[in-house]
Amino acid sequence: MFYHDKRLQYKVRVDKPNPQFAKALQQALGGIEGEIRVCLQYLFQAWNSRGPARYRDMLLDTGTEEMSHIEMLATAIALNLEGASNSLVDDLVGKNPIVKDIMGGMDPRHYLSTGLGAMAADSNGVPFNGSWVVGSGNIAADMYANVMAESTGRVLATRLYEMTDDAGMKDMLSFMIARDTMHQQQWLAVLEELGHGDMSKVLPIPNSFPQSQEKQEFSYAFINTNIDPSSPSVGENRRWTEGPSIDKKGQFSEIKAQPYGDEPQLGPPMPEAHAQTEQIEKAGDKS
Amino acid sequence: MFYHDKRLQYKVRVDKPNPQFAKALQQALGGIEGEIRVCLQYLFQAWNSRGPARYRDMLLDTGTEEMSHIEMLATAIALNLEGASNSLVDDLVGKNPIVKDIMGGMDPRHYLSTGLGAMAADSNGVPFNGSWVVGSGNIAADMYANVMAESTGRVLATRLYEMTDDAGMKDMLSFMIARDTMHQQQWLAVLEELGHGDMSKVLPIPNSFPQSQEKQEFSYAFINTNIDPSSPSVGENRRWTEGPSIDKKGQFSEIKAQPYGDEPQLGPPMPEAHAQTEQIEKAGDKS
Amino acid sequence: MFYHDKRLQYKVRVDKPNPQFAKALQQALGGIEGEIRVCLQYLFQAWNSRGPARYRDMLLDTGTEEMSHIEMLATAIALNLEGASNSLVDDLVGKNPIVKDIMGGMDPRHYLSTGLGAMAADSNGVPFNGSWVVGSGNIAADMYANVMAESTGRVLATRLYEMTDDAGMKDMLSFMIARDTMHQQQWLAVLEELGHGDMSKVLPIPNSFPQSQEKQEFSYAFINTNIDPSSPSVGENRRWTEGPSIDKKGQFSEIKAQPYGDEPQLGPPMPEAHAQTEQIEKAGDKS
Amino acid sequence: MFYHDKRLQYKVRVDKPNPQFAKALQQALGGIEGEIRVCLQYLFQAWNSRGPARYRDMLLDTGTEEMSHIEMLATAIALNLEGASNSLVDDLVGKNPIVKDIMGGMDPRHYLSTGLGAMAADSNGVPFNGSWVVGSGNIAADMYANVMAESTGRVLATRLYEMTDDAGMKDMLSFMIARDTMHQQQWLAVLEELGHGDMSKVLPIPNSFPQSQEKQEFSYAFINTNIDPSSPSVGENRRWTEGPSIDKKGQFSEIKAQPYGDEPQLGPPMPEAHAQTEQIEKAGDKS
Amino acid sequence: MFYHDKRLQYKVRVDKPNPQFAKALQQALGGIEGEIRVCLQYLFQAWNSRGPARYRDMLLDTGTEEMSHIEMLATAIALNLEGASNSLVDDLVGKNPIVKDIMGGMDPRHYLSTGLGAMAADSNGVPFNGSWVVGSGNIAADMYANVMAESTGRVLATRLYEMTDDAGMKDMLSFMIARDTMHQQQWLAVLEELGHGDMSKVLPIPNSFPQSQEKQEFSYAFINTNIDPSSPSVGENRRWTEGPSIDKKGQFSEIKAQPYGDEPQLGPPMPEAHAQTEQIEKAGDKS
Amino acid sequence: MFYHDKRLQYKVRVDKPNPQFAKALQQALGGIEGEIRVCLQYLFQAWNSRGPARYRDMLLDTGTEEMSHIEMLATAIALNLEGASNSLVDDLVGKNPIVKDIMGGMDPRHYLSTGLGAMAADSNGVPFNGSWVVGSGNIAADMYANVMAESTGRVLATRLYEMTDDAGMKDMLSFMIARDTMHQQQWLAVLEELGHGDMSKVLPIPNSFPQSQEKQEFSYAFINTNIDPSSPSVGENRRWTEGPSIDKKGQFSEIKAQPYGDEPQLGPPMPEAHAQTEQIEKAGDKS
Repeated sequence: MFYHDKRLQYKVRVDKPNPQFAKALQQALGGIEGEIRVCLQYLFQAWNSRGPARYRDMLLDTGTEEMSHIEMLATAIALNLEGASNSLVDDLVGKNPIVKDIMGGMDPRHYLSTGLGAMAADSNGVPFNGSWVVGSGNIAADMYANVMAESTGRVLATRLYEMTDDAGMKDMLSFMIARDTMHQQQWLAVLEELGHGDMSKVLPIPNSFPQSQEKQEFSYAFINTNIDPSSPSVGENRRWTEGPSIDKKGQFSEIKAQPYGDEPQLGPPMPEAHAQTEQIEKAGDKS
Repeated sequence: MFYHDKRLQYKVRVDKPNPQFAKALQQALGGIEGEIRVCLQYLFQAWNSRGPARYRDMLLDTGTEEMSHIEMLATAIALNLEGASNSLVDDLVGKNPIVKDIMGGMDPRHYLSTGLGAMAADSNGVPFNGSWVVGSGNIAADMYANVMAESTGRVLATRLYEMTDDAGMKDMLSFMIARDTMHQQQWLAVLEELGHGDMSKVLPIPNSFPQSQEKQEFSYAFINTNIDPSSPSVGENRRWTEGPSIDKKGQFSEIKAQPYGDEPQLGPPMPEAHAQTEQIEKAGDKS
Repeated sequence: MFYHDKRLQYKVRVDKPNPQFAKALQQALGGIEGEIRVCLQYLFQAWNSRGPARYRDMLLDTGTEEMSHIEMLATAIALNLEGASNSLVDDLVGKNPIVKDIMGGMDPRHYLSTGLGAMAADSNGVPFNGSWVVGSGNIAADMYANVMAESTGRVLATRLYEMTDDAGMKDMLSFMIARDTMHQQQWLAVLEELGHGDMSKVLPIPNSFPQSQEKQEFSYAFINTNIDPSSPSVGENRRWTEGPSIDKKGQFSEIKAQPYGDEPQLGPPMPEAHAQTEQIEKAGDKS
Repeated sequence: MFYHDKRLQYKVRVDKPNPQFAKALQQALGGIEGEIRVCLQYLFQAWNSRGPARYRDMLLDTGTEEMSHIEMLATAIALNLEGASNSLVDDLVGKNPIVKDIMGGMDPRHYLSTGLGAMAADSNGVPFNGSWVVGSGNIAADMYANVMAESTGRVLATRLYEMTDDAGMKDMLSFMIARDTMHQQQWLAVLEELGHGDMSKVLPIPNSFPQSQEKQEFSYAFINTNIDPSSPSVGENRRWTEGPSIDKKGQFSEIKAQPYGDEPQLGPPMPEAHAQTEQIEKAGDKS
Repeated sequence: MFYHDKRLQYKVRVDKPNPQFAKALQQALGGIEGEIRVCLQYLFQAWNSRGPARYRDMLLDTGTEEMSHIEMLATAIALNLEGASNSLVDDLVGKNPIVKDIMGGMDPRHYLSTGLGAMAADSNGVPFNGSWVVGSGNIAADMYANVMAESTGRVLATRLYEMTDDAGMKDMLSFMIARDTMHQQQWLAVLEELGHGDMSKVLPIPNSFPQSQEKQEFSYAFINTNIDPSSPSVGENRRWTEGPSIDKKGQFSEIKAQPYGDEPQLGPPMPEAHAQTEQIEKAGDKS
Repeated sequence: MFYHDKRLQYKVRVDKPNPQFAKALQQALGGIEGEIRVCLQYLFQAWNSRGPARYRDMLLDTGTEEMSHIEMLATAIALNLEGASNSLVDDLVGKNPIVKDIMGGMDPRHYLSTGLGAMAADSNGVPFNGSWVVGSGNIAADMYANVMAESTGRVLATRLYEMTDDAGMKDMLSFMIARDTMHQQQWLAVLEELGHGDMSKVLPIPNSFPQSQEKQEFSYAFINTNIDPSSPSVGENRRWTEGPSIDKKGQFSEIKAQPYGDEPQLGPPMPEAHAQTEQIEKAGDKS
């Protein structure tokens, strides 16, 4: 079962809201390379696992971590959309039709369907599709599916990193890129346990992104999201928690899940999106 | 952010595995009335929430609980599918083609694609679709969307309850029906805070299912999944944690999330589904 | 069975065609909050209805009305797309590539696939999906599904209203917002008959949109689309045709369906979209 | 705009309810060859029509007729599903698990999601998809799309006819096959007006189904669904209302739309599907 | 079975790369009117063909040709996307955020998901859908489905032709328009063999596009893609390989498939898209 | 560009037609693990390839081979469906309704939509979805995507092998399993060239299927589908055409593509599926 913490796993800061970047971020949230997919994929693989138990545990730990990444991205999208709110107000004040600005790159449903919020869809508004959740019942096939997911996912994250010069967004993405580095290694470590040889040179994927730009203290750390620290007694000699990393560029370690971010603070509803009156009046109310 | 416990929120026991019932259960997991939908719906509403904070907290609490229900259903499906394994073996021993039995009511992908595991799909194998995740940015519209989701969800759960005479499955469903009872009330409690009047007579939906058959100790309890008990300091006078329930048939209370179930124990992989050799050899291995 | 009138239920006038607004309007036509969904949802609920008959009749009446709304929106989209035609001609005259203008906010399929016409898709071009049509067989669950559909639908309509300063479009939307006001009440009236209490304060959803801007003569009128005025003899004391409205802001009445709009007059085909020669030559031909 | 009549266009009688046949009928309702597709396709082509007006009118007439066919099929499905209800009761009385019977050929969602009702989906439960609605803006391309839709549709209807020995269902299908015969001719008549030559020998498609088994009084009649008999003043010399049919096997005529069927009478809700108590108590209530 | 040639069927040249046009071209690749659809449709009809064999052969020939069209379009898209690369570099050099340019009309997934490559999706990024592949088992219905596909496909191609002033793209499209002219005639020739009369006047669809702008040497030539020239011994008197064309504007001929284009030469990977280092270093390497 | 041969790549024989097995085979044709997916995935990766050219060539070769596998599976499905035809005839002769047999495990659309033919869909009738076609622009990510596709694909093929005792089908599947063995190695050979270490022990996936049951002469042979034998001059020292295989269980070789199967011979149309009369009369006609 699951628990939550109101704080984020890592801080999500947006210095200059940008609705177009919100649209791009949707790919990492609801696209085939995105976090909903890996979250459900790892959890379904865990729930369907018929042994060995050590892999089930690892899948649960990391599937739970991905849930926290979904949350971070949804928050990043909502914060970036506050840029739409400002320009909308300007447009309305200026008595201009606001259509062109809303439609010129922004996802129209970010205004029309959510009132400036994230959606379970990709960067073209195509809904998340459950067929992407792969769990074959064969541990090697599943691990390759996971390596593939983290490889295309890390490629995507580096592209998003290149698209923005918002320092807050670059910081968040450097954390996510680091976690993808680790998750790639983690699934390959299972393959190594199953007899796979030296895979160091190809890693991390992409290997053309300078690792100095990722948040390296998280690049080789397995994050244990189990609520009970004494619980993962199975899993002695887990390849992914100690010793050299698969890419030979770091040392694996294990850390207990904890929030590095704060509770998110979104702005109030944009008047033109017609929340209920009570929402508008009590937007900042904590009682 | 999120944490997990290896134990289930409530016990999942299957006395007589039944692959056809596994297929039916998929509707409650990946269908439009299912748990993936409500989980993501409540969490996206929380993440997109622009106030008041009390509703954001409640959505986080219950969205997290639904994650635990997804896990229970996936486990129930995997356990029910073990019936396919047995009959497959019988058929193979009997030198009969096994096609007809596999295909005569079972979802073929439960064998072909997962090797006897759950999928992110409905009872016809149609994949979960992200478009079902509704978060409009208007709290009243969202609450009605949630009441609707819990109403169609509870109707579905009562129909599943009628379909089975497996005592373990009936017990699990009676818990889920009770939670749906509570969740219906919870969203209506928000509407009551927003000015909605007496909604007691229509509840719970369906009102034709005898409540004596639901696990009533959970029918009016708000389950707080926040990892920090002192955290939800906002939310004084929350309508959904004390006082008479919306249907006037119970008293609201608040309980801290805890596992009532155990760590699930699935059977070993079925040989014909060709897991890796190491999985078959070490299926029960806890090291 | 069904009949049609060549005139529209309400007038559809576009003063300044705007292809970007056409794209936004698609959400109200083929999106999850849109008119195809509610039309089919109410009609399927009627066709599947196993009693009481009074609700079947009401669902048929309103499902049929929604068909007329689909028609209005499709017409509005086709008229707004005529703006693309003009700018295309300008661009061609100016010897400029027209790609950028076509693609800079307009749905490319509005030109490529339809030659300036409406599609059964949402504002991102994602096709209408039949899974959105909810009919559970439980009247209370269905009514909540309908309230939810009309709530998210009215929120959407008010957002579209804010996006445009075209007086014709604002007029059409003010009619549609009024009809959503009525339809919300209508489904809640069924819930009231089933025992639901005072729901006045939360209504209409959103309650932050000034009702003075909706076409108020249609805000509390049930439109009977039955071809035979004497037919709805069942349904005496129908809560939704007389007495105070659910929100206590109006009085319910019943009116016979009639066209308030004219037969739509679209412009001729745009030459670059390559209709058949005969269409271009006889575009205005009434013979 | 649109009106309805509570009676069906043609009678829908099911002598022996058969849930498996209900599943097959879904293909003709929500599949790519089905009635929702042709209904929306003809109506969108009409709404997007930029001339000549005579074709717009014809498309409106026939699109409206298809709406009545959707209604007939939905009714036929609901009536066929009453067979599930009976066997369910038998099974419950016999204390047997009912899973196998429900799942052994029936669409599980016909019980789980609708409580014995029709869905906007095909015979595999795959939802209707708006991408199937083709309106290209070129009248010849559109007419071929319509001929194709009516050809695959009539092929489907003849296959359904062969699948059943229920006299009521055969009668309903013989009417629908006849209407498909006419609709094929109708779109080809437009192509003939546009210069297409003699198309008689290939028709109707399929030409291997004996026309004596179709309801031949409807095979060459254009049904005018316009509510105002004097309205279609445009359209003199319409090829599809007089003269020899395209296949030279009949004479075209025009008749005013009227119901040949009665108001449908579905059975009461099945108890195990948990409608609201009030629905069960008042199922036959006409007040 | 199948073989390939590294050269293209016809030359694909892009004088001025244009990412917005790449987005539009996706409709002809992965949209409902596109080449993946016709390729699979003709091949499935061939593979499912139960006679006569002459039609099976023709379907195989043309289905294989469409495979070559898919390849041309994918290449055209990749070449047009190189425009994104240049402007990205400019933007980065200029220290500007590149988001707006990327998102202002380009498909964001062309950068995010493919690193400047084609996708199996339409111009809105909606994935190709297998339901569009029609093979009914009735040859007349199938031929009409094919005429419809080639009619909407040729309409689309003429619209794309109008959208661009790139001479290379116009040349490629004029070839594709000519092939669509031929393919329309080809399926109609089958219908003529089955008894269809003179269809000359309506053709080609659209008839409003000047045929002088299509590559007319390919407008009435059947391209035989069979690897063994002596193989198609069946099919004497094939209507589509000799004699006047169906539209009476040309003479049918048969030519052996051969590449008129060269092996495509794409530019190197764009650095910001993070290919592997080895790809960047060895981009032009032929060893 | 592409060519075809009327003969199959490998023989497809069905000793005892079985419509239920036809349904299961659909997963390998149109499912996420299926041949349409790998065919398009390898070809799109080739068409989008920006170097090195040796990988582009290999992707083209193998993508073309997968096209031949699609053809084999479609043929296998059509042949297995002839079992439906026989039982249908029996049922009709026996004057029994044929519904139950058709619906009791067979895909209803195999009769209703195709008249006993294959579809571009999975084993639940869910259409093939273009989103499954992964080409990221990063060669390592793409190779892992391909390993994953061939791993889940080979797992699927071994499960299908276990489901049948038809000697013809087992023979065809043993060929396909061998090709999957080779294709897994092929993509891993690229990864080895990129620096990946010894991957022998984990292979082939699944490693629990006895390789003696696969058609071993094809297990380590690269099939060159290029029409010009002298063409692949690039690609000296290609890791996947000589030397020990990645799993160290064989030696790589290269063979020129050639048909090992014959031209397929399907039975005549089933009368109840209503092909055109001419198809039925001339089913075996080769003229």
